[in-house]
Parts: sequence; structure tokens; C-alpha cells
Amino acid sequence: MAEPSARPRLPEPLAEPSARPRRIVRDVAAAVGLAEGERGVDAVIATLARLEPVSIRRVSRATELPVPIVASVCGELRKRAVVAEERPARLTDAGRALFAHGELSLPSSAACRRCGGRSVVISDELHAVVRDVARLARAAPPPRLELDQCHCTVETKIRRVLALHAAGALVGKRVLLLGDDDLVSLAIASVVREFGSETTIARLVALDVDERILALVREGLAAAPFPWVCVEHDLRVRLPEELVGGFDTIVTDPPYTIPAVRLFLSRAAEALAGAGDVFLSFGSKRPGAARLAQQAITEHGLVIRSLTRDFNEYVGAGVIGGTSHLYHLTASEETRPLVGEFPGALYTADA
Amino acid sequence: MAEPSARPRLPEPLAEPSARPRRIVRDVAAAVGLAEGERGVDAVIATLARLEPVSIRRVSRATELPVPIVASVCGELRKRAVVAEERPARLTDAGRALFAHGELSLPSSAACRRCGGRSVVISDELHAVVRDVARLARAAPPPRLELDQCHCTVETKIRRVLALHAAGALVGKRVLLLGDDDLVSLAIASVVREFGSETTIARLVALDVDERILALVREGLAAAPFPWVCVEHDLRVRLPEELVGGFDTIVTDPPYTIPAVRLFLSRAAEALAGAGDVFLSFGSKRPGAARLAQQAITEHGLVIRSLTRDFNEYVGAGVIGGTSHLYHLTASEETRPLVGEFPGALYTADA
Repeated sequence: MAEPSARPRLPEPLAEPSARPRRIVRDVAAAVGLAEGERGVDAVIATLARLEPVSIRRVSRATELPVPIVASVCGELRKRAVVAEERPARLTDAGRALFAHGELSLPSSAACRRCGGRSVVISDELHAVVRDVARLARAAPPPRLELDQCHCTVETKIRRVLALHAAGALVGKRVLLLGDDDLVSLAIASVVREFGSETTIARLVALDVDERILALVREGLAAAPFPWVCVEHDLRVRLPEELVGGFDTIVTDPPYTIPAVRLFLSRAAEALAGAGDVFLSFGSKRPGAARLAQQAITEHGLVIRSLTRDFNEYVGAGVIGGTSHLYHLTASEETRPLVGEFPGALYTADA
Repeated sequence: MAEPSARPRLPEPLAEPSARPRRIVRDVAAAVGLAEGERGVDAVIATLARLEPVSIRRVSRATELPVPIVASVCGELRKRAVVAEERPARLTDAGRALFAHGELSLPSSAACRRCGGRSVVISDELHAVVRDVARLARAAPPPRLELDQCHCTVETKIRRVLALHAAGALVGKRVLLLGDDDLVSLAIASVVREFGSETTIARLVALDVDERILALVREGLAAAPFPWVCVEHDLRVRLPEELVGGFDTIVTDPPYTIPAVRLFLSRAAEALAGAGDVFLSFGSKRPGAARLAQQAITEHGLVIRSLTRDFNEYVGAGVIGGTSHLYHLTASEETRPLVGEFPGALYTADA
């Protein structure tokens, strides 16, 4: 358990973007009279950067903003030379320079064409990533069952990265892995090395209580093109101060007990920088567990954006049937942590 | 609005199954010491009937019961000659006669193979159904916008039926359509005519406030092979007594306001016979709407089993971006209606 004095030094956050893009966003939000404010404009721009060229309708779906609002935001951005005149919508070079922080040219076939892009698939173009991640996963230490470790399959690690990307929660984001025995950090690094650039990820922090995991992650991230750090920490203790409010995207696969879910959601809420996304895996089969987990999600002011059954597959997980579900949660104005210090039993073996 | 005196006559419920299967279920639940009780055994048997021959692991996923529990239930069912000795698991002829109420031999390719069955697709084998439903849909009256009618596409109507079937919420079930301007009843009838039998659906009730819709549904269901009835009713008034507690599966696409969602969920909770499934479409883009809808779901004691973004596509629905999300909800011990008589504004135009 990390003592305050042993708090890891974290890399300095990336330099804040210059004032100009922020002013543009503020002006556009005001010109449109957007209820969602600057966040809404940010979402439109981020979606343009990720999907361009892209139809207004598709931006509307991705941002959950009505079509006329998106059209109006794009109109204002055109006046400011951030969005180009052509259709479908795209950024200008100047707009890209101001707003597109890093990129990731994934094969477009990551979205499942057969079922209308409602799920992600690992296309053949990802074979180098699969090989790479499989090699790293083979080096993983055996799961410590008393910590509820249970490694997900190589395919699942990669599909999680694709799901993050498909949700707009990867490129340009500050990503926190709240526990990483699944080695999602290494899958992110592999995908970025193959298809991205050094600015694809603004910052990645892998936090775990198990030093064996962190040693492996450190080794695997050594050549990662983006800023990263590993933090040894027991989540029963509050987050190191440097992590509070510092992230856009949180990924976590906590022990499948309700106290653990509440604890991890609270730590996620602390770590989020206002808006942001939480990818929570959960698959307890105890009666009532799903209802209580969803109650915890609601009470934390988090919103379920999607819930995909059996998204995660695990190696040798007989009793839980080998799968769990992926919740994509987003923060709202009401998002807040509910658990402080946590003295209780955390793992299923303690329950 | 239907007066109590004008309450429609409903067909008699199907005869209760004989006492023997119920006794078997009770004995197996007791022998296994199942926390979920008879419901758990029912779920295992229904899954066997739907998917046989099927692995224990797949039954575990579908029922959310741990693998050893499913194995043990199947063991007890084998002793009673309901499940056959062979693997993967399947019913005996005697078991089928006792428990398999109707069937539906859909092309297996309804589950999307490319993304691991995580979504449903309309395979070529369904072309007759697509043609049939498209023909019926062309006869639909123009949407009454003041009732928030907004017809979903033919593909969506059929994919809803496939999603119901994939979730085990169609075969042998009593199905209630809480509002049916989407004509899902006709898509169900078409799929059953093509691939099912007269016992595939135990009973279907289409309820709507709009007599024009009901006239069309009545015409389309005239040749349906299962028991059905159309009910004209304004959901602001409580359900006709004969509908209370009478259904296993509810399908609804209410107006996208929070009061309407609360109202429709309350009516769904009233209509459910204890356990059961609710398929709710919702896609409001107002800020906070998703959070409030999920709060309403939790407060009604319903559990989100899956949430598929942009599952529903609509004809000419410019402003909402042409899509909404499909929530698959299941009832819990805590499920209860929260709204009684409803005097307020229901439709988005009134809000």
C-alpha cells in the first residue's frame, strides 16, 4: 500500500493548449446558444477529428446532439475556418493543427459491417497487434486469485482498445487503467505503435496493487510512443493527489462484488476531469448483483451509454462461465465519488 | 380513451400446464438448493428448449447461472428423464412434450457471426419476411406526430423480433406491445408464420391509443397462427384488469420524455407476470435524459440486461438523427409500478 511519502512522481501534464482554440470553442458555444456549452462544441470537434470526412448525421449520433445543433455548430466553425466548406464535414488544415491532438488510423473494418457497426471486430489488418499482445500476455505472471485476478483473452484486450476508439475515448485522451492485470495498457501501446503517433494518447497511467503486473507493464511500455507512468497503489486508499481530476478515460475490471464496484466507481469519479468515459467490466452471477451494480452506477451520477453482454472472455474462468459484460459509462454533471477510505473486504474471497 | 364498460374482451388465457412439470421443477430446485428457486430451473429448461443441443457453458451465459449450478440442474433433470444422457445437453422427447411450448426454427445466422454473436442480423433466409413486413408497412397510416408516432424501418421491426428471440423472450411467451405504431406485432406474426408453429407465441396483445393502427394490426394478424387480441387504450389510464400480471415479454417505444418513460415502465411493471423482459426503445437527446431514464429504470426495480446504441432506425426522423437505443430490461424481485393515473403532459409536443 503506497504511503503518502512513497507517492510516485508523475510526469508533468502536457502543456495546456493555447488560449486560441478555447476561445473559439467558447465563442461557438455562445453563438449557437448550446445548452451543453463548450463540452458540446468539444465533442463535435473531437468527433470530426476522429471520423472526418463524416456526415452531420453521424456526428449527431456520436455526440448525442440533435442534427440541427450539429449543423449549426459546424456552420459557426466554418465561419472561423476550423471546418472546411466541403461536404461531408471535415476540418481545415488550420482546424486540424489547432484541435486534432494525435491520430489513429485504424482499419475502418474495426466496426462490424455485418451487423451495422454495432460491435467491434478484430480485422486481419491487426494481425501484428494480435501477435505482439499474445507475446506480451504469455509473459504475464499467473493470476493471484486472492486479488480476483483473472486474465482476459488476447482478443478481449484488443477488442477493448477498439471499443475505446470506437467510442471516441482513446485519441488525444488521458487514460487511466484502474488495475491492469488484463494488460490493456500494453494492447493500447501495441495498437498505437502500429497505427498511431506519439500524440495519439495524451497520457497513460497504469495503476495496480500488484508489483509483478507493474514490472511487466513497465517493460512492455518502455518503447511506447506516448507519456506513461506506472503507479503501485491499493485502491482501498484514496487516489494519489496527482491523479485526482486528471483523466478523460478510465478502464477497470474490478472484483465482482458490489462493495468493490462502488469503490472502483468512486475512484473513477475522483480521477475523471469533469466529462469523460468509464469502461467497466462486470459479470457477477449472484442474484441481484446486476441490479445493485446499476444502482451504484446511477448513484455515482454515471450514465450507461452501452452495455454489451459477454464482451469480455477470460482464460480458464470456469465458474463465471468465462465471460463478463462491458459497461460504457459517461460522466454527467452529477458524477461524484461516494466512497472515501475503504476498510472492508474487497475481494470475492473475503466476501 | 377506453371506458371501463368498453373494456375489450380478451381471449381466455391458455390452459395452465399440468401439475407434473411444475412438480418436477420444484423438486429439481429443491434438490439443487438453488438460490434462484424454480425460476432458475425454468430458465435452464427454456434455454435448453430454445438452443438444444447446447453446451452447459452457453446455458450458463444465457441464464446467468454459474456453470456448476447449470450442470447440477441438468443432472437432476437427467434423473427425471427430462434431459437426455448425450452431450451437448438436449431434452428427451418426454421432456420436450412436457416443457417445450412451441418452437421457432430461425436461421442460426440471425446472430452475427462476424462479431461473435453480439448483435443480430437479417440473413438472406428471411427475405420472405422482409417482403411481407415491407408490404404491411406500406399500408401504415401516416404518423400522428402529436402522439410521437415515428415509424421504425422495416429492418428495425424485424431485428426487434430477432433480438426478442435471441434473448429467449419470444418462444412460448405471452407478449404485450405497449403501443404498436411500429407494427412489431405484424413482424412477429410474419416470422412465426415462416419459421414457427401455432404454439410459438402463447398469446399476443397489441395495445394502442390509435384506432387506425389497431385496424391495420387486426387486418395483418387475421391469419396469425397464435392467439392474439387488439386493445384500444390510453396508457394514461391504468391497464385493463385482464392485462395486469399477464405477460412475460413487453415491447415499447414510448415518447422520449422522462414522464412518458416512467409511465410506460410502470404499465410494463403492472403487466409483467413476476419474471419477464421489457424491451424499451429510448433515444432522447436532451441533456441528462439518459441519466434520468436510467434512474427511472432502477427505481422501477428493472435491470438493464443490455443497451444497444442506435439499434432502432426510423423513417424520416431528421431531428433525432434517425435512431434510438434498445434497452433490454429484466424484472427483479423489486420490480413495481410507480405511476398510477397520469394527468400530465405525455407527448414531447406537450412538454
